[in-house]
Amino acid sequence: MSFYTKYLNLTNMYNSFVCVGLDSDMHKLPKSVMKERNPALVFNKRIIDETCEHCACYKLNFAFYLAQGVAGIEAIRETINYIPNAIPTIIDIKAGDIGNTMEQYSTGVYHYFDADAMTINILMGSDVVDACLKRNESFAFALAITSNNSAQDYFYHDDLYKKFAKYIAQAGEEKLGAVVGATRVEDLATMRSLMPKTIFLIPGVGAQGGDLQAVCKHARASSENPLFLINSSRGIIFADDSENFAKTAGKETLKLKELINNNL
Amino acid sequence: MSFYTKYLNLTNMYNSFVCVGLDSDMHKLPKSVMKERNPALVFNKRIIDETCEHCACYKLNFAFYLAQGVAGIEAIRETINYIPNAIPTIIDIKAGDIGNTMEQYSTGVYHYFDADAMTINILMGSDVVDACLKRNESFAFALAITSNNSAQDYFYHDDLYKKFAKYIAQAGEEKLGAVVGATRVEDLATMRSLMPKTIFLIPGVGAQGGDLQAVCKHARASSENPLFLINSSRGIIFADDSENFAKTAGKETLKLKELINNNL
Repeated sequence: MSFYTKYLNLTNMYNSFVCVGLDSDMHKLPKSVMKERNPALVFNKRIIDETCEHCACYKLNFAFYLAQGVAGIEAIRETINYIPNAIPTIIDIKAGDIGNTMEQYSTGVYHYFDADAMTINILMGSDVVDACLKRNESFAFALAITSNNSAQDYFYHDDLYKKFAKYIAQAGEEKLGAVVGATRVEDLATMRSLMPKTIFLIPGVGAQGGDLQAVCKHARASSENPLFLINSSRGIIFADDSENFAKTAGKETLKLKELINNNL
Repeated sequence: MSFYTKYLNLTNMYNSFVCVGLDSDMHKLPKSVMKERNPALVFNKRIIDETCEHCACYKLNFAFYLAQGVAGIEAIRETINYIPNAIPTIIDIKAGDIGNTMEQYSTGVYHYFDADAMTINILMGSDVVDACLKRNESFAFALAITSNNSAQDYFYHDDLYKKFAKYIAQAGEEKLGAVVGATRVEDLATMRSLMPKTIFLIPGVGAQGGDLQAVCKHARASSENPLFLINSSRGIIFADDSENFAKTAGKETLKLKELINNNL
């Protein structure tokens, strides 16, 4: 089943639009898991146990695993194997290269890791997308605009972000989603008008009601389904560094789910 | 010793500007290495034995190793460990993300793999570069313009490639190089005029004399040192699929080295 189908099925059933970001930084893991053979994997499994009934997606930030070398690669593969099959998964790797290289990223992400989607950077043009999406059921989220401090350096260069958005929309919502940062609220509305049917992956939303309210209002597609995933990483997985970290992560996920629903 | 220092030392000593691209595609490896525990690693070691006296750099295309999972990650680490320390190494991963994530890529590339440089995609702005280069002796090659078919989709959007070039030049040649594709010869001259002291990593040059002649003429910085690396991957490592593959790779590297020198 493709990412797109899993997303629609799950959000219709559970009404959650939370993506839990498993940015499992070795230096922030609770002491109790550090004695395990693969601490990040054990940490992820415990987080998944407590969050899987309240979330719509898991996103694994590739860099945090690469930094752990072989153990990190094992942790990604075993984590995805552990996630219930109905919940879609994303490898956040922001890959972007020529065709023959994108085919190798596809083998790694969709086959070796068995993930449902990856994030991609389309600066190198349609070659990035074509090679990545030619597999059956593959799905990717392309960077449309980001919310980091220096995002304005190039995304706003002669409205480049709008060009990305138009490209993503015409590629078809069943194959391509968009990473849409949330710094400037007015941009969210613009992006939604340019990509009315596209699933948005929205990072960088604090747990503050104000931000979230504006994001929900401007980025949603329709009252039927907002067609977005709001990602929270540190705010969920590292909300509590005690032995109760997993239970707290479950509560934070549920809280964010409800906050989003209250604002739709 | 930093990538920059290694590059200057080695090119001054050996007068080679060839970068050997270790895009070690599992499906193209010779039969004889396929029975080894880690075929890509054994393949790379034999290629290195025969090419290391004629080249100025090795570049490992990350995607080809990711596709092999844990064995691929081991192969990268062991390959870099095997390369003589005087020869600089690049992980071609085109990483580009927010600061805390770039720090994780840095740990993976500079610490875990012990490579001298990585390629980066600076679409997300200066955050990408700052986090990546704050380590001592770290070095990166930023995409300035590429040579794939769809490169024109965005690099030429209101001369975005020139904006990248100006940014790279002001970042300082000891920390930041530029990936400069070679499709349009006139662009190479423009890029060199915008980045007079920057080391260029130039992919996509065929073994054809004509291409190479134009690239050497337009991309070189000075008669003292052209300040570029011309990468060849398939043209060297897969030039011969017989048991003589490594010896042939050595000959092809030497041939390219001499062709470049004849055109400087």
